[in-house]
Amino acid sequence: MTAHPARYGPHNTADTYIDHGITEQRVDLGEIQMNYATLGSPSSPALLLIPGQTESWWGYEAAMPLLAEHFQVFAVDLRGQGRSTRTPGRYTLDNMGNDLVRFIDQVIGRPTIVSGLSSGGVLSAWLTAYAKPGQVVAAVYEDPPLFASEVRPAIGPGIRQSIGPLFDLWSTYLGNQWSIGAWDAMREGSADHLPEHLAFIPVPDEPPQNLKEYDPEWGRAFWSGTVAASCDHERMLRSVKVPAVLLTHHGRVTNEDTGFLLGALSDQQATRVRDLLAGAGVNVTYRSFPEVGHSMHGDKPELYVETVLDWVESLDLPRA
Amino acid sequence: MTAHPARYGPHNTADTYIDHGITEQRVDLGEIQMNYATLGSPSSPALLLIPGQTESWWGYEAAMPLLAEHFQVFAVDLRGQGRSTRTPGRYTLDNMGNDLVRFIDQVIGRPTIVSGLSSGGVLSAWLTAYAKPGQVVAAVYEDPPLFASEVRPAIGPGIRQSIGPLFDLWSTYLGNQWSIGAWDAMREGSADHLPEHLAFIPVPDEPPQNLKEYDPEWGRAFWSGTVAASCDHERMLRSVKVPAVLLTHHGRVTNEDTGFLLGALSDQQATRVRDLLAGAGVNVTYRSFPEVGHSMHGDKPELYVETVLDWVESLDLPRA
Amino acid sequence: MTAHPARYGPHNTADTYIDHGITEQRVDLGEIQMNYATLGSPSSPALLLIPGQTESWWGYEAAMPLLAEHFQVFAVDLRGQGRSTRTPGRYTLDNMGNDLVRFIDQVIGRPTIVSGLSSGGVLSAWLTAYAKPGQVVAAVYEDPPLFASEVRPAIGPGIRQSIGPLFDLWSTYLGNQWSIGAWDAMREGSADHLPEHLAFIPVPDEPPQNLKEYDPEWGRAFWSGTVAASCDHERMLRSVKVPAVLLTHHGRVTNEDTGFLLGALSDQQATRVRDLLAGAGVNVTYRSFPEVGHSMHGDKPELYVETVLDWVESLDLPRA
Amino acid sequence: MTAHPARYGPHNTADTYIDHGITEQRVDLGEIQMNYATLGSPSSPALLLIPGQTESWWGYEAAMPLLAEHFQVFAVDLRGQGRSTRTPGRYTLDNMGNDLVRFIDQVIGRPTIVSGLSSGGVLSAWLTAYAKPGQVVAAVYEDPPLFASEVRPAIGPGIRQSIGPLFDLWSTYLGNQWSIGAWDAMREGSADHLPEHLAFIPVPDEPPQNLKEYDPEWGRAFWSGTVAASCDHERMLRSVKVPAVLLTHHGRVTNEDTGFLLGALSDQQATRVRDLLAGAGVNVTYRSFPEVGHSMHGDKPELYVETVLDWVESLDLPRA
Repeated sequence: MTAHPARYGPHNTADTYIDHGITEQRVDLGEIQMNYATLGSPSSPALLLIPGQTESWWGYEAAMPLLAEHFQVFAVDLRGQGRSTRTPGRYTLDNMGNDLVRFIDQVIGRPTIVSGLSSGGVLSAWLTAYAKPGQVVAAVYEDPPLFASEVRPAIGPGIRQSIGPLFDLWSTYLGNQWSIGAWDAMREGSADHLPEHLAFIPVPDEPPQNLKEYDPEWGRAFWSGTVAASCDHERMLRSVKVPAVLLTHHGRVTNEDTGFLLGALSDQQATRVRDLLAGAGVNVTYRSFPEVGHSMHGDKPELYVETVLDWVESLDLPRA
Repeated sequence: MTAHPARYGPHNTADTYIDHGITEQRVDLGEIQMNYATLGSPSSPALLLIPGQTESWWGYEAAMPLLAEHFQVFAVDLRGQGRSTRTPGRYTLDNMGNDLVRFIDQVIGRPTIVSGLSSGGVLSAWLTAYAKPGQVVAAVYEDPPLFASEVRPAIGPGIRQSIGPLFDLWSTYLGNQWSIGAWDAMREGSADHLPEHLAFIPVPDEPPQNLKEYDPEWGRAFWSGTVAASCDHERMLRSVKVPAVLLTHHGRVTNEDTGFLLGALSDQQATRVRDLLAGAGVNVTYRSFPEVGHSMHGDKPELYVETVLDWVESLDLPRA
Repeated sequence: MTAHPARYGPHNTADTYIDHGITEQRVDLGEIQMNYATLGSPSSPALLLIPGQTESWWGYEAAMPLLAEHFQVFAVDLRGQGRSTRTPGRYTLDNMGNDLVRFIDQVIGRPTIVSGLSSGGVLSAWLTAYAKPGQVVAAVYEDPPLFASEVRPAIGPGIRQSIGPLFDLWSTYLGNQWSIGAWDAMREGSADHLPEHLAFIPVPDEPPQNLKEYDPEWGRAFWSGTVAASCDHERMLRSVKVPAVLLTHHGRVTNEDTGFLLGALSDQQATRVRDLLAGAGVNVTYRSFPEVGHSMHGDKPELYVETVLDWVESLDLPRA
Repeated sequence: MTAHPARYGPHNTADTYIDHGITEQRVDLGEIQMNYATLGSPSSPALLLIPGQTESWWGYEAAMPLLAEHFQVFAVDLRGQGRSTRTPGRYTLDNMGNDLVRFIDQVIGRPTIVSGLSSGGVLSAWLTAYAKPGQVVAAVYEDPPLFASEVRPAIGPGIRQSIGPLFDLWSTYLGNQWSIGAWDAMREGSADHLPEHLAFIPVPDEPPQNLKEYDPEWGRAFWSGTVAASCDHERMLRSVKVPAVLLTHHGRVTNEDTGFLLGALSDQQATRVRDLLAGAGVNVTYRSFPEVGHSMHGDKPELYVETVLDWVESLDLPRA
């Protein structure tokens, strides 16, 4: 056994966070303090932006000024991310979804369009099924891992056959609330820990800023399945009540040999999402962007804004 | 193998329900329709009554007129009970608690005193920890199985060592949403299925009215632990923010030989509840009623009303 | 709620079993009594036959005389099936596999060729990885649900996306050890309980003989995942030490829309099995029979015997 | 976030192990290579010694010469401990128990007295219930955490209310197979990670030798419950078939306030063990040693040897 250097400490020390060009605010939602940023006029339609896993509100920093010409936008830090409260043992879709229900009530205060990426896209779907009546008028699911982030999905590859082993790696080596922080050990161990199809992902020398702001217990909740233990995606999608949904589907490749999905959801899973929504009476718009990375709003903010705008204009929504 | 008669069908057929002397109403909370009854003047303080497992709102039918002299009372059917919506796969404390958060917002609309029995008492505790700021001003936990309804509690006997095997029996023979309804088989099999310390409980010839209105999947959620999978009681109690709590503790016996708890929570568990609440800065009142059965509000409504009133008057609450 | 007739009682009453043309014997393996039948000469190579789920030893009744011309055959009832012991709470691959290790030791007493169907094929794989050194000389995996019977497989569809819902139906309505036996309720409820892709399967008026001899808790163990909780198939296949394996792969269809696998394992999963075995240094023979049903040994005993014989002859095994 | 020094690497590097005065040997049991040491004459009765969690065979190093005057002793390293094979994902009582079944068959080769400490005592109980007929003639359970090492025991405190949080600490910071090895971080984090009743346990500056030889995944298997997932202790004890058992019960204190058990099993649990064994027809000898630490054979080898000898002599066993 040999000594080994370098571990990173728990979050919330002075050097965890950095400053941003948009003012951050906090609201007390009961269980958590939610951090958020807002831009745009109260006379524009309200748009709630929900980041993905390992993303803080500022993942939308480039897109927000563009969106603010058309919407009053609110970008939040979900519990366990950014500057919002850590809640050990309590990272579930239902708890995160209800945080957003309260946020819409307490901060936005009027019918809202919601748009979420990745896990945030799953929460966008959650809101279309389970929010309070009248809260959500339309929803964007931006490249959401519906089914693919479940441990035991109704269709297609689940978390073990997609990104899950990476979440397992992070939560194992970094620990809940960064309690372990064994970054270097993680970098050395990643090739052994990950299956071949993920082993190519490089672990950088230092934790990137977005990961520093992320509670690795999130990853554990996905890998173990507790995050959706009482929130089966198929059942959720059958329950959607919001009339209009835009589903964007970005780059994805399914490995023929390993079955591994590199991407948020497979074509088959996306088709199933559309069928279930249609069966629930929802007007679904599907846009495939096979050349675009997971975060369109981060990588191609103009394309994201244009895509959302085109769709919103097609809906003929009542003015707020 | 021999043929065997008599099974009871799924709920919600014409003969599932009976009429009551107080008008029932329903409200759309987003995911569920919640059934409730209300009595008393809007100028009195609001009091939310939360029934226990296998109890519908009318478990409070005798107590409500007495309470209505002092409060505007609202008694609800929790999801999966009474005339409220069944939600397969989604019976968790967090989901039920958030139903109540919405109910207070949408129906009561002002700061509320809450009082819950048994599982409803655990939800009363949930509200004191996790409701929206300002919703709950004080709370009664009426004989709540804190710790004792968990599969793996921080202290004392858990569900396997208390009432759990009975919940297992019901959910096994009756099925989720009464899909099996093998009542007679259950009566015959109960002695084999239950451990000695519960086998004395007689199974009546016919399902009683309260059980007819109960989704046996509730019982499964407790027996399997999904109900509190991401809601550890110890953590919850450390998080209580409401300033005043009344904990009533009714008849309980711990069997020296088997360790089995006949009762909602043991003395040791009650002490731990008080300590955790005190540590969170809560003003806790503890009242032990070793001679009173599990539902004081059902068995001794006058005593229940007097107990609640005495405590409320001691609090010097601001007028609504 | 309406009364409903007809339930079937627990197993092991007088009318559970029927007679067969080959004598049955029992051996005490420590935890269980194992029932089995044997045919053929001790001077022929030993062949152990392992039935599938819901199959007793007599599923091999037609094949045994044909095999006995070349082998001393032993067909067993696995724990929880046929006349072998029921073991509530203890149905795992590891326990069943170790029963077979003991059976080979105590009854066969010399190096053995093993051949198992379906779950028995998974146990055949288990023996190739985990039996005692020298016990198993070669193995047939007859249409085994490798990966496809796991809740969270390394590759391809798992139990939820294949036959699992049927196991869930059985164990729910019939109960562990046939404790509920609500056959008629099951027949009526099956369309609601099963997903579309399985709802076409007719439930007969009476339980067929093989199901009468089956402990429905088996099905629960697969549906819940306890059967393989500490026996990941991928890890098991990487650990195979027996030098020669025959993998037969029968009719299978993967539904394009639902992803549902009608069959024991998908082509992709079969390829992965072969790759893992090859990586472990095993000489794998793969035979695809897309026109043959799940049990070749039951439906086409001559083809089964011919297939096994051809392969055994190709191996140039040392004489026993 | 701050950099932090010192982690220990994976096991099996040159400096993991130390030499001992008794020769070590290895046997191939099929899945694992088992390391063991033996002493004494083949003409004496056979005695199998099963170490506890975090103990290698040499925990018996002082006792072995004393025992060897009366027995042929065999002390083993369980899978995942000492120099025996690591088996990720496969640490269960059933798998470890079956290792011992094979060891008795392959190495000892005759009826055996077994004696195990702690988790090894639970395995001693496992062998009395589930070994092959005739393998075990009598058994010592040395201070075994029956019930108390389960996540959801039939009686008394479970793993959460006893030593479990320490196992959780180790497996979290050290990682499966010492893949993380963040010893210093563990020492710093232990006070926060452990509940009060365990926080007093000091974490030394360096890993002690026994821990170096231990796979922390063992601890995870106990904390998560996978170790006994299909091996309920109550059911196991009801199934004991070996005629004579010695249960020793060492120092134990149950904290009145927290319910925490400092010790292997509570008095109530010990009584229940005795009752269940008596109900199974076993001749149980109970010896309480409230002044003796957890490992009598390590701390007071003479007392251990005398205790075992007195009991064996009282049994009037047939000569081997």
